[in-house]
Amino acid sequence: MDDAAFESALNELRTDRVRGASELARRCLDLLARSAQTVPADENSELIGVLMRRCDRLTAARPSMAPIQNLLAAWKSSLSRLGGLSLPALRSAAADLAWEGVRQSELAIVKVMDNAARCIGSDKTVITHSLSSTVLGVFERLKDRNTHAIVTESRPLKEGYILARQLSEWGISTQLITDAQLGLFAAQADLALLGADSLLPDGSLVNKVGSYLLALAARDADVPLYVCSESFKHREEGMAALELEEMEAGELGMPNLPGVRVRNLYFDVTPAALIDRWIDETGVHDTVAPSARTRP
Amino acid sequence: MDDAAFESALNELRTDRVRGASELARRCLDLLARSAQTVPADENSELIGVLMRRCDRLTAARPSMAPIQNLLAAWKSSLSRLGGLSLPALRSAAADLAWEGVRQSELAIVKVMDNAARCIGSDKTVITHSLSSTVLGVFERLKDRNTHAIVTESRPLKEGYILARQLSEWGISTQLITDAQLGLFAAQADLALLGADSLLPDGSLVNKVGSYLLALAARDADVPLYVCSESFKHREEGMAALELEEMEAGELGMPNLPGVRVRNLYFDVTPAALIDRWIDETGVHDTVAPSARTRP
Repeated sequence: MDDAAFESALNELRTDRVRGASELARRCLDLLARSAQTVPADENSELIGVLMRRCDRLTAARPSMAPIQNLLAAWKSSLSRLGGLSLPALRSAAADLAWEGVRQSELAIVKVMDNAARCIGSDKTVITHSLSSTVLGVFERLKDRNTHAIVTESRPLKEGYILARQLSEWGISTQLITDAQLGLFAAQADLALLGADSLLPDGSLVNKVGSYLLALAARDADVPLYVCSESFKHREEGMAALELEEMEAGELGMPNLPGVRVRNLYFDVTPAALIDRWIDETGVHDTVAPSARTRP
Repeated sequence: MDDAAFESALNELRTDRVRGASELARRCLDLLARSAQTVPADENSELIGVLMRRCDRLTAARPSMAPIQNLLAAWKSSLSRLGGLSLPALRSAAADLAWEGVRQSELAIVKVMDNAARCIGSDKTVITHSLSSTVLGVFERLKDRNTHAIVTESRPLKEGYILARQLSEWGISTQLITDAQLGLFAAQADLALLGADSLLPDGSLVNKVGSYLLALAARDADVPLYVCSESFKHREEGMAALELEEMEAGELGMPNLPGVRVRNLYFDVTPAALIDRWIDETGVHDTVAPSARTRP
């Protein structure tokens, strides 16, 4: 992977608005593995220098994405501990470490899905907001267990339609609602289930805008809120300050009027006090568990 | 106004999804006034019989609309007390009573707007949801008083665009957001202001779906919620049970999928405990005030 190919991949990473943070983190690790195998270098220190710089640039490309920060920091830390290898062996070891990170990430997500499905059990009505690949995996595990879903459309990109289409294929009976109906329908559910963009150190949830409204409505109706996410999504104390990204106003299709500013923030923050269960790859927790990075 | 014209007007009333309840109530009174003037009758009892029946049919056409119930009940009660008049004088008196009802309704709304504007005062950021003609009148009174607005689009009909357009013409600086961003933006406001479809006897608010989410977000952010509506919008204990109307799913433009039911409820209920001030034609109240119908 030469410099031009890397720069192009870096640029794609910066502008990707479709893939979730965990998937992008795995793409970064894959880029690093391929870099380790192919980047020109005459000795170990030169190779490590190039890889460290590429790792730092990937990390800086999406500073608000916790999985990128966590998985790349773990890889970098392991890389710095590799010693006494020939250059070809170092290339292999660095690549293997990256792919091991990919595997750990994928494994963690599967465990989160399993833990959430076990915790929820049969015969439940589950309300959710936005499209989370983890939540989707939980529904897949519950599809033959008399599960009912309440799904919001999730303006502006309406990714709720994708979720509803998949639930329909799995035969899960579903109600599809506008975001504004969240308050009416939360009370019909046995529980609210959300994925995470990231988790703050105190357990607060950063997720698709509207998640906080679902949390408020669920609490007001005494419906518990479960958040399921692998611990790579924890934002550590030292990470870049949380910045709620604002996207192009144009994608909302709203009128352009003098003195009227169209706002399009993609994420909101749900305080930890509104969350009843945090489900990660280690199990189901009443308080937020330590992240994979800081866990002893 | 002959039977055919009345039936046609009645049908329009049943299917009107655009006009608010107060405006429709005034239309009903106008229909009754014109009926009083022109309906064929040879004696007083015959005229009163026809008018009472027409009044009952109008009342039954929109059982969930409190202003229709209240204003028409008041007219009917006054009509039954008219006595000792010639037939032409009775026609005139019945019509005048109806127009007096229209005038009282319009006067009450103006007083609500004045009271709300006085209560809010200058230099405030006001967040609102949906389009209420009363809230619009409040903004008009505040347009030269350094007022800022936060306005939701209000899916499905997006009447928030109409509000934003009017605020833009008045030079009120406005932020226009999706409904899902209510939670993020409530905290930026000095107060939340809502009109009412109707008020329940305990002061709970029936209004455009999403109002309850705004109320929850405002309370969580310690932002007070003011509800402004003339007291003709109170639902009395004896009125038909509240029925939250569900509209055509088709108007949402959502995909049609097997096993997926698209829901389109237009209203939600905000509990009185989430409301800080009720503003009506008599003033600003900490608890819901008695309605015009029951006020001593």
